[in-house]
Amino acid sequence: MMDCVVKKEAVSPLQTQNNIFPDGSKISRLQRNERFGHQSGVLWLTGLSGSGKSTIATGVEKLLFKYGYLVSILDGDTVRSGLNSDLDFSVEGRQENLRRVAEVASLFASSGHIVLSTLISPQQQTRDFVKQVVSHNFHTIYIKADIEDCIDRDPKGLYKKAMAGGIEHFTGIGQSYEPPPNPDLLIDTSKHDTETCQMMLKDYIIEHFFLK
Amino acid sequence: MMDCVVKKEAVSPLQTQNNIFPDGSKISRLQRNERFGHQSGVLWLTGLSGSGKSTIATGVEKLLFKYGYLVSILDGDTVRSGLNSDLDFSVEGRQENLRRVAEVASLFASSGHIVLSTLISPQQQTRDFVKQVVSHNFHTIYIKADIEDCIDRDPKGLYKKAMAGGIEHFTGIGQSYEPPPNPDLLIDTSKHDTETCQMMLKDYIIEHFFLK
Repeated sequence: MMDCVVKKEAVSPLQTQNNIFPDGSKISRLQRNERFGHQSGVLWLTGLSGSGKSTIATGVEKLLFKYGYLVSILDGDTVRSGLNSDLDFSVEGRQENLRRVAEVASLFASSGHIVLSTLISPQQQTRDFVKQVVSHNFHTIYIKADIEDCIDRDPKGLYKKAMAGGIEHFTGIGQSYEPPPNPDLLIDTSKHDTETCQMMLKDYIIEHFFLK
Repeated sequence: MMDCVVKKEAVSPLQTQNNIFPDGSKISRLQRNERFGHQSGVLWLTGLSGSGKSTIATGVEKLLFKYGYLVSILDGDTVRSGLNSDLDFSVEGRQENLRRVAEVASLFASSGHIVLSTLISPQQQTRDFVKQVVSHNFHTIYIKADIEDCIDRDPKGLYKKAMAGGIEHFTGIGQSYEPPPNPDLLIDTSKHDTETCQMMLKDYIIEHFFLK
C-alpha cells in the first residue's frame, strides 16, 4: 500500500478556513533558473494598439529562443480567445482580464520563463495592480508611439473602426492612455526602426535577466 | 520610424465581430518540442483527496526535471490561491475552476511543457469537457485508492472535518466520485507503494512523450 509522503504540516488559519492546501511543484524557481542560465520574470509591454508591442515581442522571443532562453509571449487577444473568453470589455471585464493574465504570467515565471506580455493596459492604477499580482521580477516596458503613427499603421483595422464609431472606449480614440511615469525601459517606435527597437529590449533582458 | 511588420491578414468574421486578433508566440510547439526532446501535453491526474495525486506528481516531476524534461505541476489548490481565488465551491465555481486550469494547462503545453495537473475532478462530464478544452495530447491518469485508505491517510485533515459535517459536498463523503471508465493509465495506490506508482507514471510519460 502506498506510504503517503505528504507531510502533515502546520495548518494556517487561512487553510483551515478555506480547506485549501497549495501543494504544487517541488522544483524551485532557482533550480529552474539555473537549468536555463537566466532569471525568470515578467516584462509587461504596455502601449497603444499599433504601437508595436507584438512586433517587438515576437522578434525578441525568436532571438532569445535561438540563444536557448525559456521565453514565452502572453498576448492579450490570445488569452481573450481561451482562458478569458467569458469576459466582456466592460471596466470590470478588462480589470479581470488583466488580473488573470498577471496570475498566469506569474505561474509561467515560477516555471522558469521570461514572459513577454503584450496588452495595451492603459491605466497606471491597473499596471500597479498587476505588478503587485506578479510580485517578483516585474518590469514595465513602455512601447511609446505617436497616436498618428498608430492610426497610420492600424494593423488590425481597429482605429478605422473606432473612428467610425464602431468601438466604444477604444484606447487613444474614446479612452485616454496614461503613459507610465517611470517605466523600466522606454522604447519609442516612432523614432526607431523595428530592428533597433527589438535590440533595445533584447539587450535590456540580457542585462537584467542574466544569472550571475 | 518603426516599420510595422504585423501583416494585414485576412480577417475572419469572428475577429471582426469581437475585435480580437490573437497574435502571440511565433515559436511553434514543434520547435519547442525539438528543443527539449519530448512532446508536450497534459496528464490529468484525477482521484479522491488523499489518493496520492500530488505525491506521484511531485516525485515524477523531480525525476523528469533531472532528465532535462520541461515539466510543471498545476495543483488545484495552488491555482485556487491565485488565478482562481475569486471562485467559490459551488457547482458553477468548481466548473469554472476546472475550465481555467484546463486553459492554463493548454497554454503551458503550447509552451513546450509536460503538465501534471492534480485535481480531484470527480465527474466524467467535467473531465470530458477539460479534455476538449486542452484538445491536443491529453491523457487521463486515474489515481485509484480505496476510500478507507484515503480516510486513513487524510493528509490535509479534510476527511475528518467532512465526516464531522464541516465540509459540504466533500468528494467521497457528501459527493460521489465517478471513476473514469477508460483512463489512459490507472495507478492503484492501495496496491502499490509510492516508488512503484511514480515509476508507472514516469514510464508511461517516457513511452508516450518521447520525440521520435
